[in-house]
Amino acid sequence: MVITNELTINKKRLNRNMEQLAEFGKLGDTGVCRPTLSAIEKQAFAKVAEWMEAAGMTTRLDNCGNLIGRKEGKDPEAPVVMTGSHIDSQPNGGRFDGTSGVLCSVEAIHTMSEKGIIPDRPIEVVSFCDEEGWRFNKGLFGSRGITGNLDADELNRKDKDGITREQALRDFGCDPEKITESVYPPGSIHSYIELHIEQGPLLEKVNQPLGIVTGIAGPLWLTVKVKGFAGHAGTVPMDMRQDALAGASEMIIAFNEIVKQDPASTTVGTVGDLKVSPGSRNVIPDEVEFTIDMRDIDKDRRNMYEQQLRESCRNIAEKHSLTVEIIEDQRTDPSYCSSWIKEVIRSESMDMGLDAPKMMSGAFHDALIMSSVSDYGMIFVRCKDGISHNPEEYASQDDLAVGAELLYRTLLKMAQHEAH
Amino acid sequence: MVITNELTINKKRLNRNMEQLAEFGKLGDTGVCRPTLSAIEKQAFAKVAEWMEAAGMTTRLDNCGNLIGRKEGKDPEAPVVMTGSHIDSQPNGGRFDGTSGVLCSVEAIHTMSEKGIIPDRPIEVVSFCDEEGWRFNKGLFGSRGITGNLDADELNRKDKDGITREQALRDFGCDPEKITESVYPPGSIHSYIELHIEQGPLLEKVNQPLGIVTGIAGPLWLTVKVKGFAGHAGTVPMDMRQDALAGASEMIIAFNEIVKQDPASTTVGTVGDLKVSPGSRNVIPDEVEFTIDMRDIDKDRRNMYEQQLRESCRNIAEKHSLTVEIIEDQRTDPSYCSSWIKEVIRSESMDMGLDAPKMMSGAFHDALIMSSVSDYGMIFVRCKDGISHNPEEYASQDDLAVGAELLYRTLLKMAQHEAH
Repeated sequence: MVITNELTINKKRLNRNMEQLAEFGKLGDTGVCRPTLSAIEKQAFAKVAEWMEAAGMTTRLDNCGNLIGRKEGKDPEAPVVMTGSHIDSQPNGGRFDGTSGVLCSVEAIHTMSEKGIIPDRPIEVVSFCDEEGWRFNKGLFGSRGITGNLDADELNRKDKDGITREQALRDFGCDPEKITESVYPPGSIHSYIELHIEQGPLLEKVNQPLGIVTGIAGPLWLTVKVKGFAGHAGTVPMDMRQDALAGASEMIIAFNEIVKQDPASTTVGTVGDLKVSPGSRNVIPDEVEFTIDMRDIDKDRRNMYEQQLRESCRNIAEKHSLTVEIIEDQRTDPSYCSSWIKEVIRSESMDMGLDAPKMMSGAFHDALIMSSVSDYGMIFVRCKDGISHNPEEYASQDDLAVGAELLYRTLLKMAQHEAH
Repeated sequence: MVITNELTINKKRLNRNMEQLAEFGKLGDTGVCRPTLSAIEKQAFAKVAEWMEAAGMTTRLDNCGNLIGRKEGKDPEAPVVMTGSHIDSQPNGGRFDGTSGVLCSVEAIHTMSEKGIIPDRPIEVVSFCDEEGWRFNKGLFGSRGITGNLDADELNRKDKDGITREQALRDFGCDPEKITESVYPPGSIHSYIELHIEQGPLLEKVNQPLGIVTGIAGPLWLTVKVKGFAGHAGTVPMDMRQDALAGASEMIIAFNEIVKQDPASTTVGTVGDLKVSPGSRNVIPDEVEFTIDMRDIDKDRRNMYEQQLRESCRNIAEKHSLTVEIIEDQRTDPSYCSSWIKEVIRSESMDMGLDAPKMMSGAFHDALIMSSVSDYGMIFVRCKDGISHNPEEYASQDDLAVGAELLYRTLLKMAQHEAH
């Protein structure tokens, strides 16, 4: 096991920065509300920029609202190694989501600078704009911005007060008319790494502070519409019913069994919402609509499970004299982390005495967007009870310090890595 | 099989009356909107009263808004045999619900009068006030009125236009201050019979025009609250979930299996409504609430099934690490039809060449209220596809005529029956 007082990075400084950052938008004792492009985030950006500069970086705000700190490399022209995350929060969020990645990155560079290390390539630390997406109902804005993945009407989206994203960017100090100038030219990003709290319970379960992410599971989103025939709850005999909810219940159980069939797989499936029509206590439901969210790092397996689900739904519908329609809402491919980055993380973590498990990320991150233009990797940090997007969110100082140490070591290796 | 042109009753007259009554509040080609205590019902009452008088009855409107026609018996002091139903309709209702019972009763008395038959006891035909209950959000008003079952604030209930039931009664020609004068003294009602369309698909399935009701199944209404733990749909492994909807789905299937365990029983169980919290596509549901409606003519069996359901819910909750709470909303005892009336109906129907099946009523009727003060029986008439409370509601002229014939024969026997 790693001994935290033998760390290269400065745990005290990291911890102090985490605590100070949590004061911006503090909510109750442990919560945070730090909306993207807000005055609060602006103040927090100023503080983070101050830490970046103290860490030996030059800083800038790009026109997408990203805060970027740059540690110059031996070859200033070389494609950059990028590391980061975000410091905007959910409306009733926690102190660790996003901030851990940004501040562990700043700490890693600070340690390099203190030790007089100049990396072969430049390293940039980014606090991405609007990862969370709730203010304008669409997230991952900053990473989509620098990779050229913004939609045409993106700037016209309004928040609940009617402020457009364009206005918010302007108020924040950006120039939305020059937003395309913030796009990184092809090939100018060598690789990307993101440290993030797990937002799940796995690391806690296996008693490890850190995990090596193998990829980000793309979700398949379906809507299942089941139609039967309404009838009086008292007058229609059981064997003559076409009860849409009885059928839907069987489909939900079948879906759970399909997803769980291989205990070794990390496939997850969720029915998060279900609506009953007419929804009256004494009327047999004639229509039920429910959502499917299925995620797997293995696309072939996800496809196979989807086929099994579709067949199950058909069979169950037939058994209950129902009709079923399945609508595809979204189909995102899984994105695999680069082997060489995973290997660097693995060997460095073993050096530190860790036995970090490989695991998939079921949630989105800016890393998913960055994977479209560059090699990428992710480090997960254990968080209590898997809770996130909640003031109860918690990662220990020790775990964060160990995470920053692994990130520091990994960044050094990434900066040395031959062009890809 | 009964031959309808050998009927004692006048099928043509019954049919003509059914058609004429359907004109009052006609909606589209086949629908009816005839609200209780409305001007439309007042006009319809006038027409029905005219037919009652033509059938040899004296008529009166009581202070509960019931239209009552009386065919005098040989012993005018004897407790009355009562027959009837209602002519108020659902807002988007059909032509047969309630009206069949009233007009088949009128036809039965008309036939008696034509044949010069004076029954031993008086027979009263009642069109009960506000069976449907939607205008003032509480039904079975007229039958509750004459049996002394009204609540204290009953007259203060308002319709959607703010008109109180008291005002509506007054506008209809009743005197609400004298409403208790309309209560029948104990023992003054000898027996009650109601003919009604089945509002279910059973008679159609067994290809019989009429059914003998064995009793009205009281519903047991429960609300089941299942609590789990929310989590991100992408990050919580399947074996660590506390998914309230996965648990609820199993409970619903278990409930269906419990209710169907004895194919010979007529128990019915329905989950008509279900709500998911937080109800977001990518969040594991932490709370699900669903309704239970279970009806059985056998109270012991219903109790046994309820215990099985409660045990199933507990076991399923435990398996999924959920908690479950079951709230009792209503528990109505089943009410059995009187043996002697069932026997009269059975032997008369056999005489007519029918093989009328015995069946429970899963829906409420005025008969359920009348059962609190008198012996009672019910005759069901086949209706198309079991559809009711809908303009598509349909019963054939032949089936109604056969129903009126059986009602005529049954009333004659009921009027001869010794005091009970």
